[in-house]
Amino acid sequence: MEKTKIVFLPDGKSTEIDSEINLLEAAKKVGIRLESLCGGKGTCGKCRIIVESGAEKLNPITKEELNLTKTGKFSQDLLDRGYRLACMAKLEKDKTAAGGQVVITVPLESRLGAQKILVEGLEKKVPLNPLVNKYFVELPQPTLSDAGPDLERVLNSLKRIKNFDDLEAGHGVLSQLPEVLRKGNWKCTVTIWNDRKIISVEPGDTSSRKYGLAVDIGTTTVVGYLIDLNNGELVSVGSLLNPQIPYGEDVITRITYCMQNPDGLERINRVIINGLNEIIEEACSKANVKREEIYEITIVGNTAMHHLFLKLNPKFLALSPFTPVLRRGIDLKANELGLKTNPEANVHVLPVIASFVGADTVGVILSTDIYREPELTLATDIGTNGEIMLGNQESIEVCSAAAGPAFEGAHLAHGMRGEPGAIEKVSIDPETLDVEYSTIDNLPPKGICGSGIVDAIAQMFMAGVVLRNGNINPEIKSPRVRRNKNMLEFVLAWENETEKGIGDIVVNQRDVREIQLAKAAIYSGAKILMERRNVREGDIKRVYLAGAFGTYIDKLSAKVIGLYPDIPLDKVKSVGNAAGMGAKQALISKEKRLDAEEIAKKTKYLELTIAPEFKDEFISAMYFPHAKIDRFPSLRKMCEKLPGWSETLK
Amino acid sequence: MEKTKIVFLPDGKSTEIDSEINLLEAAKKVGIRLESLCGGKGTCGKCRIIVESGAEKLNPITKEELNLTKTGKFSQDLLDRGYRLACMAKLEKDKTAAGGQVVITVPLESRLGAQKILVEGLEKKVPLNPLVNKYFVELPQPTLSDAGPDLERVLNSLKRIKNFDDLEAGHGVLSQLPEVLRKGNWKCTVTIWNDRKIISVEPGDTSSRKYGLAVDIGTTTVVGYLIDLNNGELVSVGSLLNPQIPYGEDVITRITYCMQNPDGLERINRVIINGLNEIIEEACSKANVKREEIYEITIVGNTAMHHLFLKLNPKFLALSPFTPVLRRGIDLKANELGLKTNPEANVHVLPVIASFVGADTVGVILSTDIYREPELTLATDIGTNGEIMLGNQESIEVCSAAAGPAFEGAHLAHGMRGEPGAIEKVSIDPETLDVEYSTIDNLPPKGICGSGIVDAIAQMFMAGVVLRNGNINPEIKSPRVRRNKNMLEFVLAWENETEKGIGDIVVNQRDVREIQLAKAAIYSGAKILMERRNVREGDIKRVYLAGAFGTYIDKLSAKVIGLYPDIPLDKVKSVGNAAGMGAKQALISKEKRLDAEEIAKKTKYLELTIAPEFKDEFISAMYFPHAKIDRFPSLRKMCEKLPGWSETLK
Ligand code: FES
Ligand code: FES
Repeated sequence: MEKTKIVFLPDGKSTEIDSEINLLEAAKKVGIRLESLCGGKGTCGKCRIIVESGAEKLNPITKEELNLTKTGKFSQDLLDRGYRLACMAKLEKDKTAAGGQVVITVPLESRLGAQKILVEGLEKKVPLNPLVNKYFVELPQPTLSDAGPDLERVLNSLKRIKNFDDLEAGHGVLSQLPEVLRKGNWKCTVTIWNDRKIISVEPGDTSSRKYGLAVDIGTTTVVGYLIDLNNGELVSVGSLLNPQIPYGEDVITRITYCMQNPDGLERINRVIINGLNEIIEEACSKANVKREEIYEITIVGNTAMHHLFLKLNPKFLALSPFTPVLRRGIDLKANELGLKTNPEANVHVLPVIASFVGADTVGVILSTDIYREPELTLATDIGTNGEIMLGNQESIEVCSAAAGPAFEGAHLAHGMRGEPGAIEKVSIDPETLDVEYSTIDNLPPKGICGSGIVDAIAQMFMAGVVLRNGNINPEIKSPRVRRNKNMLEFVLAWENETEKGIGDIVVNQRDVREIQLAKAAIYSGAKILMERRNVREGDIKRVYLAGAFGTYIDKLSAKVIGLYPDIPLDKVKSVGNAAGMGAKQALISKEKRLDAEEIAKKTKYLELTIAPEFKDEFISAMYFPHAKIDRFPSLRKMCEKLPGWSETLK
Repeated sequence: MEKTKIVFLPDGKSTEIDSEINLLEAAKKVGIRLESLCGGKGTCGKCRIIVESGAEKLNPITKEELNLTKTGKFSQDLLDRGYRLACMAKLEKDKTAAGGQVVITVPLESRLGAQKILVEGLEKKVPLNPLVNKYFVELPQPTLSDAGPDLERVLNSLKRIKNFDDLEAGHGVLSQLPEVLRKGNWKCTVTIWNDRKIISVEPGDTSSRKYGLAVDIGTTTVVGYLIDLNNGELVSVGSLLNPQIPYGEDVITRITYCMQNPDGLERINRVIINGLNEIIEEACSKANVKREEIYEITIVGNTAMHHLFLKLNPKFLALSPFTPVLRRGIDLKANELGLKTNPEANVHVLPVIASFVGADTVGVILSTDIYREPELTLATDIGTNGEIMLGNQESIEVCSAAAGPAFEGAHLAHGMRGEPGAIEKVSIDPETLDVEYSTIDNLPPKGICGSGIVDAIAQMFMAGVVLRNGNINPEIKSPRVRRNKNMLEFVLAWENETEKGIGDIVVNQRDVREIQLAKAAIYSGAKILMERRNVREGDIKRVYLAGAFGTYIDKLSAKVIGLYPDIPLDKVKSVGNAAGMGAKQALISKEKRLDAEEIAKKTKYLELTIAPEFKDEFISAMYFPHAKIDRFPSLRKMCEKLPGWSETLK
């Protein structure tokens, strides 16, 4: 029997199969692991793949796949865009279809353990043009009749290479210069920043060693990307939990700490600087790069992280009318800040937009090219705070939503960060209320992370466990729905399944309310931006979900709970750590760095709390998916079948 | 009897006198104290004044004045230019001459205690145009709908005043900004450096308080001039002995210390920084100025002081081929250097010319306008080292002479610095060898300072005590000329006249040799510069003597020993601390600061030690005034009368 080749993108791996095995198994053969909560029964809807070509060689859409579209775990929309469930798709038995090839894309959200490879995220290629350049020069040796100074000797030789205007030389450079020139026997490599400043002179030819670090300081996690500035490529990553967490889980607590303690700012600044030095150490030792070979650092972070990093008084970020100290990008010397790279390395902190919309948002807009596209993009970056952007090359508006840390698993009965043992995918059988779930690293469950809670609540809603208004349905007769200390809760995992000592893992009524508040804030922000601009869902050409949460959530579940407007799923893309990628682009491209200034200057910030329509929007958005179901036409049919649908609106 | 008014310049004081009293007494009446070693007998020649107008109302030149021109203590040349001795000049008794006024200039060198008022020295006025400017602005208060950042708020208001290009703001400014703006109720004063950098924002209107510090770091003394940048005027002075002296009296010893001790440079840098902080403290407290009100500092010093101040490796300054680390001026932040002014104050270190010709020489050329005059100027700045400049607006050449510290009184049997109790003026009666001297502050003598030794040796030469070849004349029969441990010496002051414990103060044969070596080096440098340029004494329109030594020496005595070529005395001017005045001009004038860069770039350095003619020149210049007396035609007549003149040439 002739076999057919299956090619998996973007991995580029392929295998030949016959009609006996399905695409889930085929993927496994080549080492691509897909989510498959139901074990291939076609009931969880997690093993989605996209058929790029050769669809005619596959079996027709199965009954299981069609059924799932009714439960909201899969959708007609996705089917129309070429999505299938890998466990249901196989080669057509008809021999005439055999041979040739079928090309499959495996989307990020269907991959098991995707978080491990997701440090970079979606990134538009930018031409390499870093601000840091190295030049190797050979100098004439001084003599009694040519005893000109060392620096002028270097400058004269550089002039022969390029017509630099007026190069400054940092003090650290000058203090090494005499020994360096003589050690290299008058051959040396000069590192110049921005055609303006000599930041290093090294003996001999070191031009092949030139590194930079792009840093994303999140409220919760801090990541540093070590980049080879000779080719723009990532060479290693260092990361840690933000060491400021002991001073407050959230931004406001940390600012309050600074306000209430005389040396609070000093202390909170020192811990992040020390943390960055650990990251530098980690990234450098992984890649066998010397600290001194890092010549530039770019930094993004929300405005509070930005101020704390720069040791700027954050007090007025938190007091109405919420003014930051400065907007524009700023350049400082690494050793002034206490960063242990090349002491003269430039540290460029990207600009911010407003008190609640920081350099991280600038980074998202920068790296996703929203500001250059003619079509409209809606983007959200949901971390400890949520920012929502809407715009195109004409203009961009942005607002901030107090999404709170719920999506990071905080403040939930069994919430936890996205660490090993966290439930990250959930599927609930609407008939039996049986629960299938997967955990990070497939460990016994310890709790629920952000993507898990979105999945869980969407599934609870679709199974009728949670009503449209967010109430847990008290009429359901199931051991999983129970009352605990006068509060209803739903059991996701029984004690015997969970990590020892954890007991039953539940989603309780308060958890649902937390998520309702958070998602309503995000949705309202998006919707108000749309209305201010007078655009509808159909005008939006793409939705970008940035940040770790945006990467790992199930896009369909997110839509079911009403996190973002009803836009076809194929237009919705996870873009990974887009903020960090913005820092990287600003590191490797002078043009992108200038673009970032423009973005910060031109992006309009909308203060949601003073928008008159905000209150009404917010209340309507508390419902699943929304009080006005006509705003979610793609979910209407599924929703209208749910128990108590019409009674629970008010 | 009708009286006549006498006006003294530049003081502008006047008094009416009759013919009974002389001009020395008249000066005393108005509080101007003149040197008068001989007590008004017309024999010391120190009380010189210049008659600017009304000479016809005075008595004719006296016998005493004419006699003195023969001894070299006064000269026909000076008489021709209107000089008189104040103690000899009085109103003509003829009544018809009475009434009207006589205008007199009192030259610096004739003033008693001139050093006390001589911190400024001669200074050409420069238009005030400091790099530091203050702007008072009133900002719109932020609101929820205008919550723009603090910095951008300031920048927008500044834009209405002046079209600044792209203002940077130092970190220290940003860290204070939120509190400052709110404290001043959104009225503030912004200090901007060089139209480029915001260095301070202060609440309210502080524009009337704007200071700068001009510093001259000498090998031996360090002086700081506190300048009001709103009018360019000196408000106070701080000074101290260079605290690096314990690491070496001279430059080479200090450099050696840096080379031999791992933390030598660090240590030697720290002491000068600490010293400058003392000077800042002193100058500020004298003038009731706050440290933070100093917004800029300019620094001059020789190249070694320059390197040690900047903590730059000085090693190669002292090793052939003698290369400095850099030439051009450099700007640093006060707090980076550890200087306790406004932390963001700019510190501008003026450029240097070569390893042995530093920013102090640039300062001399700058403040004396040598580089702008069409006529040729010869200038020397004799401190611990000696620099010689020759040039005009076309070009300037400069060389350095190892004058050694002899002129600062070091290495002499009874040498001392120009401190109270130092013999600074000497007169020797050629008949009796009686010595008259004056000391600083008129205290009993403790030793001889630089100007005292020049005077003493010139007088010893003119009295026949020292021969043309520098030998002390062994044939003189006088208790003052005696042999001590096999070395001839001349007693200037007897034990009973001197400070207790000092004993006799003498000038011995070794002292004379030291001075011979030093003056020969200076003269040879000047002469070689002249010959390289193919100019003669007559082509030189002025001679400037810079530095404390140049200020206090008797110009005629200096010529008699042959320190500089035979140029008429009225063309020779003391210009005080011209290096320090260069620092001051660079502080108050943007144009002057740019000029300094041009001077450093264009001034040609001549390395005397590799000039083939140097050795011969040097040997001839060892004689008093010179082996070739035709080079000193104005001294010929006087010299040829001296005992043993013709025998002692070889
Ligand atoms: S594995 Fe395919 S639907 Fe569950
Ligand atoms: S005081 Fe006039 S010559 Fe001495």
